[in-house]
Amino acid sequence: MDLWYFEDHRPGVRFGLRCLRTLHSERTAYQQIDVLETEEYGRMLLLDGLVMLTSRDEFIYHEMIAHPAAFVHGGARDVLVIGGGDGGTVRELLRHENISKIVLCEIDKGVVDVSLRFFPEVSSGLKGSSRVEILYEDGARFVEEHPSSFDIIIVDSTDPIGPGKILFSSRFYRSCFTCLRPEGVLVAQTESPFYHMDLIRQVRAGLKASGFGPVRFYTAPVPTYPGGYWSWAFAVKEGREGLLHPIDSPALLRAGEDAGKGRVLEELRYYTPEIHRAAFSLPRFFLDAIEG
Amino acid sequence: MDLWYFEDHRPGVRFGLRCLRTLHSERTAYQQIDVLETEEYGRMLLLDGLVMLTSRDEFIYHEMIAHPAAFVHGGARDVLVIGGGDGGTVRELLRHENISKIVLCEIDKGVVDVSLRFFPEVSSGLKGSSRVEILYEDGARFVEEHPSSFDIIIVDSTDPIGPGKILFSSRFYRSCFTCLRPEGVLVAQTESPFYHMDLIRQVRAGLKASGFGPVRFYTAPVPTYPGGYWSWAFAVKEGREGLLHPIDSPALLRAGEDAGKGRVLEELRYYTPEIHRAAFSLPRFFLDAIEG
Repeated sequence: MDLWYFEDHRPGVRFGLRCLRTLHSERTAYQQIDVLETEEYGRMLLLDGLVMLTSRDEFIYHEMIAHPAAFVHGGARDVLVIGGGDGGTVRELLRHENISKIVLCEIDKGVVDVSLRFFPEVSSGLKGSSRVEILYEDGARFVEEHPSSFDIIIVDSTDPIGPGKILFSSRFYRSCFTCLRPEGVLVAQTESPFYHMDLIRQVRAGLKASGFGPVRFYTAPVPTYPGGYWSWAFAVKEGREGLLHPIDSPALLRAGEDAGKGRVLEELRYYTPEIHRAAFSLPRFFLDAIEG
Repeated sequence: MDLWYFEDHRPGVRFGLRCLRTLHSERTAYQQIDVLETEEYGRMLLLDGLVMLTSRDEFIYHEMIAHPAAFVHGGARDVLVIGGGDGGTVRELLRHENISKIVLCEIDKGVVDVSLRFFPEVSSGLKGSSRVEILYEDGARFVEEHPSSFDIIIVDSTDPIGPGKILFSSRFYRSCFTCLRPEGVLVAQTESPFYHMDLIRQVRAGLKASGFGPVRFYTAPVPTYPGGYWSWAFAVKEGREGLLHPIDSPALLRAGEDAGKGRVLEELRYYTPEIHRAAFSLPRFFLDAIEG
């Protein structure tokens, strides 16, 4: 049997992976969850038919959503992850010893259960760590109810359709602003610069209107995502010198010298301090789209 | 009619574009040439069934194969392009006023003819410029016969199969070394870091064994190429300070101030001096693969 999964990245653009078998299919109260075993990318998690992660390339997305904020902030104690039920972002955050508490706010318990069962290397941080608390709640409501409680908020959302849609709204960003402590950092995944520049512009406007000072974007290649090229917003609640200029952050530059942070770097497969700086350098078309 | 072109990027990985119609199909002495009109990426050129360029994203590949070498060298007069019959690389090089002569050595006249007919915006430099000379010759033989003749050589080859295979050999790199003038720069496309790390390692070893001093790699996202992420080798014949460290090159840093070079930057859609520096920052897995 020649079994293929195809995702339409755009009307007229299709990405396909040959599958060896279906491991799991389930319809939760929120979405359709499928796990497939692919020939080239290992196991693959789909939510509503869209690739959330594969075993082979998830390290890039998860390292890049977690470490830029963690290294730049330097001294974060409390981190909130909204979405991210697969656990990959939590796994990366746990490498930072200064982070004493990670709250994962995932609306769909089904995603956590499926990841624990089929992606043990991704979900390793979701069980057994006293530093991790999992809440099965609406992240948008949670941030409204917890002012000045976190040093970093990471919005590890699905695409802006279905349950993930509210996580791209201005109202949500205002709540995040309030939920952050002074000098807090928000990172949010913002889709592909090749296909979703309108969304990126909208996120930038929403973050700025919500009170965030510097709002920057950074990118990395992710081969199984649309366009093979992904972006994240990086917004700071109140500036201090290092946070205003994430690519020159003293915390980042010190990372190689600091024993604890140096050990973090040794465990990574995509992120380096050089890659961190480079990721914030945006192509001309990206700059033109957000500045123009 | 729902017409799709699919390219297998790997066994088990397939990329598809919906096509509105076939514009041209031809079998030359060297390869199969096809031109398709796609829904999302405009016109697309295929050689032996593999995507060479699309109207929508070719600017990234062509800017990134041409400008890093042109800006770093700074004073190049004579440039040799091997392959590149579509003309995109020549178009980018012509923006640099210090370049007085570009020799395009393309083995298959069919590629040039098809590009002139179907991709006028890509092939614009291939007709009417007194600075461009087109030779329909074997590039590997041409470099052997022209010692110390060029300041920059750009290997704008197809994949390392068929007519492009010899352009990845150590013998060819030795000839390029001899063909370059002192302080000359060689740039060669080296496929996707996600899928072709063995080839990249082999290119690096071949360049180093051929006498090149610093051999570095840089990357950029190209959505219609395998993995959506592409790489180029950057090798210098003999070091001078600026060329040893391309990302800190004085010529590059001056680019914004220099009137002529500043005008070049205004015309580009991907490349910026910041992107230039960032492109040479390689992911951990890439560094491990070439250094390990």
